Amino acid sequence: MIGARTLLTTLVGHGVDVCFANPGTSEMHFVAALDEVPQMRGVLTLFEGVATGAADGYARMADRPAAVLLHLGPGLGNGLANLHNARRAHVPMVVVVGDHATYHKKYDAPLESDIDALARTVSGWVRRTLDTAEIAIDAVDAVTASHAGIVSTLILPADVSWSDAEAIDPDPQDAHPPVADDDAVRDVVTALTSGAPTVLLIGGDATRVPGLSAAVRIAEATGAKVLCETFPTRLERGAGVPAVERLAYFAEAAEEQLAGAEHLILAGAPSPVSFFAYPGRAGDLVPENCDVHVLAKCSGAATALERVADELAPGSVAAVAPAARPAMPSGDLTSFSAAAVIGALLPDNAVVVDESNTAGVGIAAATAGAPAHDVLTLTGGAIGYGMPAAIGAAMASPGRPVLSLQADGSAMYTVSALWTQARENLDVTTVIFNNGAYDILRIELQRVGTANAASPGPNALQLLDLGNPGLDFVKIAEGMGVPGRRVTTAEEFASALAVAFDEPGPHLIEAVVPSVVSDLFKTG
Amino acid sequence: MIGARTLLTTLVGHGVDVCFANPGTSEMHFVAALDEVPQMRGVLTLFEGVATGAADGYARMADRPAAVLLHLGPGLGNGLANLHNARRAHVPMVVVVGDHATYHKKYDAPLESDIDALARTVSGWVRRTLDTAEIAIDAVDAVTASHAGIVSTLILPADVSWSDAEAIDPDPQDAHPPVADDDAVRDVVTALTSGAPTVLLIGGDATRVPGLSAAVRIAEATGAKVLCETFPTRLERGAGVPAVERLAYFAEAAEEQLAGAEHLILAGAPSPVSFFAYPGRAGDLVPENCDVHVLAKCSGAATALERVADELAPGSVAAVAPAARPAMPSGDLTSFSAAAVIGALLPDNAVVVDESNTAGVGIAAATAGAPAHDVLTLTGGAIGYGMPAAIGAAMASPGRPVLSLQADGSAMYTVSALWTQARENLDVTTVIFNNGAYDILRIELQRVGTANAASPGPNALQLLDLGNPGLDFVKIAEGMGVPGRRVTTAEEFASALAVAFDEPGPHLIEAVVPSVVSDLFKTG
Repeated sequence: MIGARTLLTTLVGHGVDVCFANPGTSEMHFVAALDEVPQMRGVLTLFEGVATGAADGYARMADRPAAVLLHLGPGLGNGLANLHNARRAHVPMVVVVGDHATYHKKYDAPLESDIDALARTVSGWVRRTLDTAEIAIDAVDAVTASHAGIVSTLILPADVSWSDAEAIDPDPQDAHPPVADDDAVRDVVTALTSGAPTVLLIGGDATRVPGLSAAVRIAEATGAKVLCETFPTRLERGAGVPAVERLAYFAEAAEEQLAGAEHLILAGAPSPVSFFAYPGRAGDLVPENCDVHVLAKCSGAATALERVADELAPGSVAAVAPAARPAMPSGDLTSFSAAAVIGALLPDNAVVVDESNTAGVGIAAATAGAPAHDVLTLTGGAIGYGMPAAIGAAMASPGRPVLSLQADGSAMYTVSALWTQARENLDVTTVIFNNGAYDILRIELQRVGTANAASPGPNALQLLDLGNPGLDFVKIAEGMGVPGRRVTTAEEFASALAVAFDEPGPHLIEAVVPSVVSDLFKTG
Repeated sequence: MIGARTLLTTLVGHGVDVCFANPGTSEMHFVAALDEVPQMRGVLTLFEGVATGAADGYARMADRPAAVLLHLGPGLGNGLANLHNARRAHVPMVVVVGDHATYHKKYDAPLESDIDALARTVSGWVRRTLDTAEIAIDAVDAVTASHAGIVSTLILPADVSWSDAEAIDPDPQDAHPPVADDDAVRDVVTALTSGAPTVLLIGGDATRVPGLSAAVRIAEATGAKVLCETFPTRLERGAGVPAVERLAYFAEAAEEQLAGAEHLILAGAPSPVSFFAYPGRAGDLVPENCDVHVLAKCSGAATALERVADELAPGSVAAVAPAARPAMPSGDLTSFSAAAVIGALLPDNAVVVDESNTAGVGIAAATAGAPAHDVLTLTGGAIGYGMPAAIGAAMASPGRPVLSLQADGSAMYTVSALWTQARENLDVTTVIFNNGAYDILRIELQRVGTANAASPGPNALQLLDLGNPGLDFVKIAEGMGVPGRRVTTAEEFASALAVAFDEPGPHLIEAVVPSVVSDLFKTG
């Protein structure tokens, strides 16, 4: 069989059976082979950033990699931002980048570029298959490497794809469940029982029920404060789930959460730093004279926390969030009333993909007692993640409703994700918070704190403004086959949301909300 | 003054006064400084690929660089595909990529990534300013380097941007007009007068009137055949301009154009190679036993051709294309009847940005005798170039109508360019050829020529299909503030095009045309 079919057969045999694709000419043999290996489901996206974001969302919910098929360096470039987010999410992914035939590289044809250099900026594993005889082993290695929570990138020359090769039969590998580090456990137990103020910062695989339960049991036994990293890959929460507070995005607020801690225990989370630097402010958010203890990296954090919990409070059971929904609001829609509507209506077992940014300020509180749900967040800060990730989350979670909460500015980065949601008839409800601005940047402009930024002029402000003309997301959605509705009151939002949750398939709701900082910045 | 203001002042002083921007927090001081340096015009785009494509289009028409402002590695990643095209177009551009503060890099904050590695894949000049005292000299160097026809990338840490620095006053530099290489001219004259079949392949700066005239004079004097590179950066053509045939995209056709040549003279064009490799086909398109002569690289090609023409045919005048327009067609719209409508109605002095791909097959012939116009093409093959480039072309060419010819699949890569066209009220008429498919890939799938590709199955074909659901570009355009109209007959297209050319500001016409290969591929 030809290399492309060998690759597909080997991927499927090793548990990778969805491929988000933007193919080009150099990938045509891969595409043609999809009919010979029908176990691989090819999903077309209209832009590579949608494909890579979808594979990220898929991996977060499926706990296994999807494949992505990209076309040469420019295709990889278009997919890089969401590969960056995936790298920060520590999810597995297998990216196949088609390249020119090996003998064609030397001609410097128009699409020639340094794919390897691009791939290395986001991938923990990069290999270029130069011999078709090695394509199967390279595919197995790519999948195996990805299981460590990294993006594997396999560069596939066209002639390797079209030449003959044999597949490798599946070789079930021993699972290696993570093991806690005894020294780290002992050190952390000592800190927790020292009586000194202690913060336990969790992340990685500790943000699902087992890790959350262990962390809360530890807090209950010792008085330590539990915080979750600012942007968890996948956070389980809601009624019946042990609740944790998230570390704040703004450094000033995060410093308050951490203030006074003499021990900071890291379980799956990196040491806290500010998202950006600001003139005259510290970047490292660890309080002075606070000892930092690393219990575990992102993989194995839940296991390590359970070890600590069992040592400190054997047999204890963590308290969980009670079921509670906000009262249904009425009147003009705001970020907070919209959050209350969501809290009131969130269906059972939802997956919430959150790229709502400033407009989402009230959502965490409003949904704390809603039925248990998963939240996927913008791990790497590269906007344009949410709507693609919703595709993958929906495909990995059949039967679960997906709620995609999206800021207007970020939405426009990868808006064609809506088309794939329509084509695959995915049960995704997209809420676009349309406040007509890059509101976060209007806040950040103030926070950077120099004289010119503190009193911005019209030239600066127009670069942060999404009006003139305003975006009509209902028309944009309808143009891609997704029914849309624009709402300006809480009642309308509730009605639209109920319909969207009730009907299968994708829906979009454009929720018009005032800017959080609109009073500060009058651009008129 | 702070570094950001110094940078802007220095850029403006050295001829860079438009900046296409997608800023983030690390660029807030640059943004704020736009009110202190109002000579710099900041233009907001909703995605970085739009910003970089706009700067490419701007440079092609203005013959000087625009600046681009991007946010960290992911922002640069989003802009890479159109930087790739700009690199292949040999246009000047100054890309400023904001980065974390120098002292913040070590914290590996969520948006940290290897910006330098990304930049090097598309930039001929990359520098990271580490000391605010050097920002002005770095800015001057970036602009100077770009004048060689390269993308300069200046990486600007936030603290360099917000610290104090002094600008550098403009230092008018001596222009160095290109000088022809005497040996090369002599060698080429010998080849041209040898009596052997000779092809003159022009590109680079030889695709405007001076170079075209010289090439046609040479052909008229010697019987040599003139061809223009497949994807010229900016080709002047139409009534009153010396006409040249373009080298075909498909290698089989290009081989026919080059067949029998014993000398191939390269004037601004690279040696011809196939765009992609195909099983069993040559990648190098130079005929066997044909001598290749390099007269000039992309800069200086026109000058060198004039030297050769003056030597071979002193005082001669090149024939020019006569004024001629196709008859106005009627009935159902096809790619060819649409081309005839365009040929019949193209206004004086238009700039045509061409990313029509397969649907544009008839346009070159139909517009050969239309009023003189410039054509900008997809130099690097990275799709999603046309609609952004139209922004820049319009801004660089006030008073000239811009016609943006766009394939449906490519359009979806950077469709938010429409919003910037609306915001800046640019006189751009966008024609989307909606044939409901990645038609070029349906052709390429046949051409790659292996058994599985020759008779593709439904899984392969659905990855090349843009129906299900069909895209409604009128709604998408209206959602971004651009009035749209859908046309299915030649009469409707003519009417819509006349209105769009007549009214100022942006318009979009969705021209529904049958797939070129629709009879070959029935996906129903």
